[in-house]
Amino acid sequence: MKIIVDAFGGDNAPLEIIKGCRAAADDFGVTVILSGDEEKIKSCAKENSISLDGLEIIHAPDVIAMDENPSEVIKSKKNSSMAVGLQALADGKGDAFVSAGSTGALTMGATFIVKRIKGVKRPAIGSVLPSNDKPFLLLDCGANADCTAEHLRQFAMMGNIYMNKFAKCEKPRVALANIGTEDSKGDRLRHEAFDVLKNCDNINFIGNVEARDVPFGCCDVLVADGFTGNIMLKLYEGVAGALMVNIKNIFKKNALTMLSAMMVKGGLKDFKKRMDSSEMGGAPLLGVNGIVIKAHGSSNAKAIRNAINQAKICAEMNVVGTIAENVKKDADIAE
Amino acid sequence: MKIIVDAFGGDNAPLEIIKGCRAAADDFGVTVILSGDEEKIKSCAKENSISLDGLEIIHAPDVIAMDENPSEVIKSKKNSSMAVGLQALADGKGDAFVSAGSTGALTMGATFIVKRIKGVKRPAIGSVLPSNDKPFLLLDCGANADCTAEHLRQFAMMGNIYMNKFAKCEKPRVALANIGTEDSKGDRLRHEAFDVLKNCDNINFIGNVEARDVPFGCCDVLVADGFTGNIMLKLYEGVAGALMVNIKNIFKKNALTMLSAMMVKGGLKDFKKRMDSSEMGGAPLLGVNGIVIKAHGSSNAKAIRNAINQAKICAEMNVVGTIAENVKKDADIAE
Repeated sequence: MKIIVDAFGGDNAPLEIIKGCRAAADDFGVTVILSGDEEKIKSCAKENSISLDGLEIIHAPDVIAMDENPSEVIKSKKNSSMAVGLQALADGKGDAFVSAGSTGALTMGATFIVKRIKGVKRPAIGSVLPSNDKPFLLLDCGANADCTAEHLRQFAMMGNIYMNKFAKCEKPRVALANIGTEDSKGDRLRHEAFDVLKNCDNINFIGNVEARDVPFGCCDVLVADGFTGNIMLKLYEGVAGALMVNIKNIFKKNALTMLSAMMVKGGLKDFKKRMDSSEMGGAPLLGVNGIVIKAHGSSNAKAIRNAINQAKICAEMNVVGTIAENVKKDADIAE
Repeated sequence: MKIIVDAFGGDNAPLEIIKGCRAAADDFGVTVILSGDEEKIKSCAKENSISLDGLEIIHAPDVIAMDENPSEVIKSKKNSSMAVGLQALADGKGDAFVSAGSTGALTMGATFIVKRIKGVKRPAIGSVLPSNDKPFLLLDCGANADCTAEHLRQFAMMGNIYMNKFAKCEKPRVALANIGTEDSKGDRLRHEAFDVLKNCDNINFIGNVEARDVPFGCCDVLVADGFTGNIMLKLYEGVAGALMVNIKNIFKKNALTMLSAMMVKGGLKDFKKRMDSSEMGGAPLLGVNGIVIKAHGSSNAKAIRNAINQAKICAEMNVVGTIAENVKKDADIAE
């Protein structure tokens, strides 16, 4: 199994990326192919005494910055670590690609370089989010701001396969993010999508769910257009982050409250771990013709190592092939 | 000042409503008019030794239930406490109306009975939400699932007036809820709305804000279509609620952690108060031709008392008249 990794994507590149690749190669028995400036990778590894034994490098002199226009990945930045890595995946030089770089660039690059699975209308970004029950997959998280009901139907199908294959969820509960649980709730898009989804016999569609119930774990796959999904993803992070600031301030108030913090340290640590996005793995880009995992921009070595393992499992479980089969079946039925 | 209150709206009606009205009449010097079944109101007050001195009653034998179809308020339930109260407002028998009943029914009832302010295309539900800085107004929170850019422009204008008049916010920072801060971000509706909002010279439009920054207090008025606003409102509640369950469980673990909870009790209580929706007041229904305040369905006496005070301030500050003036100015400019 060969996993290609963008050595220059994310805030902590290349050091944390290289460290994560080293750990993944040692722990999961995969061959890691780093895409990026060969000299810089080698000198960074040397300076930090990281062995590159068994790791391969594909030279890519450029880097696409987080704030660059995503389309540059297929225009002026064809020699960037991201574009070169994606091309290597498209050329069959590896089984999956992992990057902590710009989500926009990765989505565009994957769509144009790796290309869509035949029949998939729009690739979607999935994010695994924590809940008080088990984690769930939210998609689309921002690849497509404007969507149709048919797009949402494909997101549901792809999310279903991902949670079944990757998370070993037996019969994922697929739900539509809506403003009420009744069948008739929502805007025009939700009305259309509900009608389409309730007629899908290859998914376990449980109907509409309200945003209020989502953090308590009311479904395994949550379907949304990319605008709504992105709002939900970021508000999830935002509210949790803002609350934690408040809780920390309560503990920091005086000597007594600081002592109190010591007493619940274990519980808070467990909880933090459960909520930790690096524990959730990266975001799969579903619908492109290869395994593409977007690791968080702030990924450290551990997050990169986990994302590589995630990529490996997706490749082993043939997530892409299964999506392709399902899309083909759909098309055959439609004919 | 006369405030009409729906005595049979919400989970705790009529007892908590009557208690809240009593407190408001005593504390704010307003005359409260209760709409609802006269006999039931009187017997409830008697049983609980609440004086109805100075409180008026408009008899309304029916009740519209939380799960009833909203349109019933203007069809089969014209004699409900909500419909009768709204009619009294429309007839000028009071200066404002407060209800803890169904949001859908209240929106529909207010729109058809109290009617829209001339020129307002769609009334919007505003909700005041807490942030790590100061509270902000989110609108529309669900009155209109499908919106146009022009609707969003009017929401911005009405929200601006509400925060200026009611919350005494000098120059409210009005922002568009979006999936990125750059001007070009978002779906079709956001692109159109951004262009319309940036050309409004009667509001302080600060541009797009990301959902991630919202809980930290990045704006005073957050503009969204009713679908997105409702998702945000409920996810806000949901994530905060789910996190608090976790925090509570951490404290409940053993004797030591319970002792720890005692030590931070004061801080947690202050924090809880700051986050308490009953402290934020009810949700104003903006754009209808009268002050209509939707109190939370689970409102207790305190929340009802606060909502009555909120209604009083809105009436005193002439929120409805100011919105009407602004819409008229807009129309004059357009001519």
